[in-house]
Amino acid sequence: MPAESEIIIPLDVPKEAAETYRENYRRMTHGTGNLMLFAGDQKIEHLNADFYGEGISPDDAGPEHLFRIAKHARIGVFATQLGLIARYGSDYADLPYLVKLNSKTDLVKTAQRDPLSSELHHVQQAIDLRDRAGLDIMGVGYTVYLGSDYEAVMLYQAAQIVHRAHQHGLLTVLWMYPRGKAVPNEKDPHLIAGAAGVAAALGTDFAKVNAPQRDGVADSRLLKEATLASGRTKVVCAGGSRTDAKSFLQQLHDQIHLGGAAGNATGRNIHQLGLDEAVRMCNAISAITLDDASVDTALAIYQGR
Amino acid sequence: MPAESEIIIPLDVPKEAAETYRENYRRMTHGTGNLMLFAGDQKIEHLNADFYGEGISPDDAGPEHLFRIAKHARIGVFATQLGLIARYGSDYADLPYLVKLNSKTDLVKTAQRDPLSSELHHVQQAIDLRDRAGLDIMGVGYTVYLGSDYEAVMLYQAAQIVHRAHQHGLLTVLWMYPRGKAVPNEKDPHLIAGAAGVAAALGTDFAKVNAPQRDGVADSRLLKEATLASGRTKVVCAGGSRTDAKSFLQQLHDQIHLGGAAGNATGRNIHQLGLDEAVRMCNAISAITLDDASVDTALAIYQGR
Amino acid sequence: MPAESEIIIPLDVPKEAAETYRENYRRMTHGTGNLMLFAGDQKIEHLNADFYGEGISPDDAGPEHLFRIAKHARIGVFATQLGLIARYGSDYADLPYLVKLNSKTDLVKTAQRDPLSSELHHVQQAIDLRDRAGLDIMGVGYTVYLGSDYEAVMLYQAAQIVHRAHQHGLLTVLWMYPRGKAVPNEKDPHLIAGAAGVAAALGTDFAKVNAPQRDGVADSRLLKEATLASGRTKVVCAGGSRTDAKSFLQQLHDQIHLGGAAGNATGRNIHQLGLDEAVRMCNAISAITLDDASVDTALAIYQGR
Amino acid sequence: MPAESEIIIPLDVPKEAAETYRENYRRMTHGTGNLMLFAGDQKIEHLNADFYGEGISPDDAGPEHLFRIAKHARIGVFATQLGLIARYGSDYADLPYLVKLNSKTDLVKTAQRDPLSSELHHVQQAIDLRDRAGLDIMGVGYTVYLGSDYEAVMLYQAAQIVHRAHQHGLLTVLWMYPRGKAVPNEKDPHLIAGAAGVAAALGTDFAKVNAPQRDGVADSRLLKEATLASGRTKVVCAGGSRTDAKSFLQQLHDQIHLGGAAGNATGRNIHQLGLDEAVRMCNAISAITLDDASVDTALAIYQGR
Amino acid sequence: MPAESEIIIPLDVPKEAAETYRENYRRMTHGTGNLMLFAGDQKIEHLNADFYGEGISPDDAGPEHLFRIAKHARIGVFATQLGLIARYGSDYADLPYLVKLNSKTDLVKTAQRDPLSSELHHVQQAIDLRDRAGLDIMGVGYTVYLGSDYEAVMLYQAAQIVHRAHQHGLLTVLWMYPRGKAVPNEKDPHLIAGAAGVAAALGTDFAKVNAPQRDGVADSRLLKEATLASGRTKVVCAGGSRTDAKSFLQQLHDQIHLGGAAGNATGRNIHQLGLDEAVRMCNAISAITLDDASVDTALAIYQGR
Repeated sequence: MPAESEIIIPLDVPKEAAETYRENYRRMTHGTGNLMLFAGDQKIEHLNADFYGEGISPDDAGPEHLFRIAKHARIGVFATQLGLIARYGSDYADLPYLVKLNSKTDLVKTAQRDPLSSELHHVQQAIDLRDRAGLDIMGVGYTVYLGSDYEAVMLYQAAQIVHRAHQHGLLTVLWMYPRGKAVPNEKDPHLIAGAAGVAAALGTDFAKVNAPQRDGVADSRLLKEATLASGRTKVVCAGGSRTDAKSFLQQLHDQIHLGGAAGNATGRNIHQLGLDEAVRMCNAISAITLDDASVDTALAIYQGR
Repeated sequence: MPAESEIIIPLDVPKEAAETYRENYRRMTHGTGNLMLFAGDQKIEHLNADFYGEGISPDDAGPEHLFRIAKHARIGVFATQLGLIARYGSDYADLPYLVKLNSKTDLVKTAQRDPLSSELHHVQQAIDLRDRAGLDIMGVGYTVYLGSDYEAVMLYQAAQIVHRAHQHGLLTVLWMYPRGKAVPNEKDPHLIAGAAGVAAALGTDFAKVNAPQRDGVADSRLLKEATLASGRTKVVCAGGSRTDAKSFLQQLHDQIHLGGAAGNATGRNIHQLGLDEAVRMCNAISAITLDDASVDTALAIYQGR
Repeated sequence: MPAESEIIIPLDVPKEAAETYRENYRRMTHGTGNLMLFAGDQKIEHLNADFYGEGISPDDAGPEHLFRIAKHARIGVFATQLGLIARYGSDYADLPYLVKLNSKTDLVKTAQRDPLSSELHHVQQAIDLRDRAGLDIMGVGYTVYLGSDYEAVMLYQAAQIVHRAHQHGLLTVLWMYPRGKAVPNEKDPHLIAGAAGVAAALGTDFAKVNAPQRDGVADSRLLKEATLASGRTKVVCAGGSRTDAKSFLQQLHDQIHLGGAAGNATGRNIHQLGLDEAVRMCNAISAITLDDASVDTALAIYQGR
Repeated sequence: MPAESEIIIPLDVPKEAAETYRENYRRMTHGTGNLMLFAGDQKIEHLNADFYGEGISPDDAGPEHLFRIAKHARIGVFATQLGLIARYGSDYADLPYLVKLNSKTDLVKTAQRDPLSSELHHVQQAIDLRDRAGLDIMGVGYTVYLGSDYEAVMLYQAAQIVHRAHQHGLLTVLWMYPRGKAVPNEKDPHLIAGAAGVAAALGTDFAKVNAPQRDGVADSRLLKEATLASGRTKVVCAGGSRTDAKSFLQQLHDQIHLGGAAGNATGRNIHQLGLDEAVRMCNAISAITLDDASVDTALAIYQGR
Repeated sequence: MPAESEIIIPLDVPKEAAETYRENYRRMTHGTGNLMLFAGDQKIEHLNADFYGEGISPDDAGPEHLFRIAKHARIGVFATQLGLIARYGSDYADLPYLVKLNSKTDLVKTAQRDPLSSELHHVQQAIDLRDRAGLDIMGVGYTVYLGSDYEAVMLYQAAQIVHRAHQHGLLTVLWMYPRGKAVPNEKDPHLIAGAAGVAAALGTDFAKVNAPQRDGVADSRLLKEATLASGRTKVVCAGGSRTDAKSFLQQLHDQIHLGGAAGNATGRNIHQLGLDEAVRMCNAISAITLDDASVDTALAIYQGR
């Protein structure tokens, strides 16, 4: 189990917000410096494809499933859009929330037009929801498509969001995805390391990147370049599309232990399961991420043994 | 007849606006949680095509027809642009209004350019009209074209409109229409469910969607995926183009009872009729939507029996 | 001669501006509800083509000609850009002004790029000129190109201009012109009626439309669909390109008596004449528009008989 | 020698700024109503092409040359960008300055993309420099490319700049250049007259236009249409590319006496000379523009006789 | 060794900020008027290509390497993005910082789309970081791509940044890079001189340009045209891609002594070395730039002799 991390408060957090930031950091990482992010922003990003269809639990057909999982499982933070949080928050007031500030659908493909995901809500609106409704909003998130024709818009919004969030003691997670006509291989380890470095230059606390591959084969050691490049900005890996539990947990363990990742951001591999199984999967992931558990231990948790 | 719905006030409604929101919700749904929306925004959306021509009552040639119907019929809310409301409101002060905040003409087709419908008026202007002129403005509406090249603009405006409307206790209805070069089949049930899920993530109270079809055939059971996906955001179905009364009412009944819809948003099937018949059609629709009437009962109302 | 119209004050005019609005309406329509608008915005719209060349009086070569006509003739309101009003206003302080808030040149043709005419000045700047310089500014005007790729920009600015003008008791005139690659026939009666309906939905007091044609032939009865569609928003017809006086006056008379128009907006058919003749033409037009004069009476006025 | 012009203060100059405006007008035109503008904005507009190369004095290689000329010669006003004024102003505090508010390089040709020259600085920033640093900033300038795809942006900025400058008593000069794919002949007299008319509609004090040509031949009488069209807005002619002194002075004399121009705006024909010769050229131009001198007299001044 | 430069404070620096400006200038140039800028903005500009790979020290894999060099070496100022400064500043509080306000990745090539690098942070945010966190932020930097289709955006932002930075006594460095489809030869000496002149017109203190070449061959004398053109704005040369130490130092010496440069901006030639060697390279560069050392002396410093 990792030692409690020493939290370095970035200087764009003003003195009056420093304690809030430290407390958010401590609680969001369970005092470990590692992050288990439960990603629930796909209702816009992937429309209903992740929630309904063959192989997906009927529990996942409605949005409350996400909240139920977040309530019953051990997670670091639950990331979703402000609208959903506002709608369900009164019944799920104690969840640790991260407001995903931008989102786009996947209808327009890169071949037609490079991706642009623009702010839906402003940091101040997340702050207001925290302060007025008393929700436990710990951070905000934003996706940057590097290499898109609209990169400049997203770099600007991301930089501003990090700056403003820090002003109020919120943590930030940037989804760093190279994508666009200019990006032939989104999984290239050198490119992903570049994306992690951009995240560092933007000053974010965490960067979510895709797992790198070489010649189409994932290898968690390839992540090492990125985790070095990002410096004090920590890297978490996207869970990606659905896979079997053991492979998934092994990959997660490798990303941390071989790749230097500080956690993971997982969505489909959790919420496409029925509630009970989803909770167990969360707990398994958290065991690896937060308790330095072995893959076998985690698998046992997942299997309810 | 459905039990009076329990109203869950979303957390972006501040405490001081909670009672206004609850009251708007209660009155707009006649205490049932279901919505009968009389759609009168087509003077921009369809120019004069819906108001003048063969098969359309001469009553429909001028805009006051819409106000007369709304006055004499039983409706949930009457949706139209702010300019019309300002112009006729002094003579129709007691109508339940929903201000449609964006609109576009249908002159530019998708083959030429993807649809962009941008704000005409701001939420604050609807609030001002409510507060200064004393009109009964209960909500605001906005259309989002998912999959358009301009999706980012509309997602942003929609999210902001929901947020600001809720700040003042107004209800929101989002017209969720997938449309653009990237959308080959606007009626696909899975896509419409995706649109309903986006509406939920945007935090709106109601989402208006088109009736889904499979292989070109409408089937209200196909709507079920969408009404699940939207969770606490309720789904109402667009009335669509003109059809015969019995089919129309049967479809509406099915959408609610088989599809899980919480009502309907109907325009042409009402206002293209002469005043008297239009009023009876409204009342028939409201009987199904608000009183849980059978199709036969509703048809009798329409026929004035 | 028409009875003095009863003025219905739209509800976006606040109470404190109601008397200003009513007085502007009364004076701009000479208490008749009908409008004779002298259009003098072509120095941007048509560059120097309307002011200099064969068949155009040398009087028209300089902008002061417009002000001289407006001073000596009987008109409802004189529409031109703020810059010209500011420059000549000190010598023509008593004219009834309408500030045309947007304009574009005709250099870029639709085949190259769809038309975009964007705000030059804000409503507040017209208000300031009224209040500080003591000019008799009664209203503002704006052109909307429906069906242009830039329609959304213009619909937004138009809606906002109407709203803000009304806040200060100013009247509004919208030039409603369908134009763009998506518009094959700008003179189509159904399309012009649609444009008039859009104007109503935008809440303007007056809409200026082109005279409709069927199969290339103008017929003022074709205007009836538009004057019905616009409801309480009144329709005035553009004077169009230069024609002989009798035909012009006959057309104007027909537009009012057969087409339901509430007046006209005439530029070239006035200012391309020498000062004296231009004044007589204005007076002839006003006789028909404001006094319900016959074509013969108006013609006699024009001919100075 | 022209009589002292009577200054008509436009009505967008508020009362409290009227005396400032009048004094700026009087001094900038040396009490004659005519303007000798020394144009020094080419470091952005033409990069280094106007300042370094064959036939250009080595004095011109650095920007201070412009300030030295302006200091030692008799000019109306020296136009250049705010950055240069800020950098050299402490050593040239008494020069009469006009801040050129927009500029673009000439790298992108019209064949690639229509010209867009957007604001670099705001009127308020010029005012601040005047008021805080005590510089003698008398006016602001701005270029409008009529017929460009971006015409709407520049018409808006120009209109706003004129309005705001007048609010503070500053004079305005608009460079009115038809340019773009839609403009086959920038020198067409009718088009230049149109541009002068647009300048009038924008309310500027002076419009700078290119010298018109017919069939490729310049004739100052062709300018007459423009100087009529612009009315109370005065027209000054661009000096254009380098030519011999006598032809240049003759052309200037003709533009005033045959074409009705109220002066000139000259850059390269001055600053490409060595300091001493440049000063004499300025003085020669001023003799014609401000003293109504003959060409021979002016030539003698230039030649130092 | 150069005499201590006399600092001319530009007039857009208000009186209350003059002493701050002077002190920043004095310290950033070590009292010499020359600038040694350590460029560390490549984590966005070049992604990870400059930091990881063959021939690059493993020290360079993480961002802290840049801070360590800046701490241990003699530099004028260390330029990097605000995010990185905020993240590491608490441990490197005494470094002389310049906040690079815009950046873009190099993924999208000019053949696909002309470069646009837009603001990430505002000058005020750099000021806040200086004032609240007590960091020694002396200036801000910004890149302008002249000749890009988006030139107007960058010229505007650059002009505004210079103006606002000066308001607070910060120095400014503009990276002036001609680039785009309209720029066939970025290294052309005449074009680079033009870029330096634009920098002067924008009012910046320093302009960073690429070393000019004729027929593909660099010659520091070619820089002379640029250093003349920029006047009181000083020119520093980009270090460019990695080269051997002796050639690099000779080139730097020539740029200053033959080309008139006031220093250099070097990144890769420093940070791709291990810490110790990087520090020695910095010191060697500073010896030439700040102490007027010979190439041999500088080389001895680099070699640790």
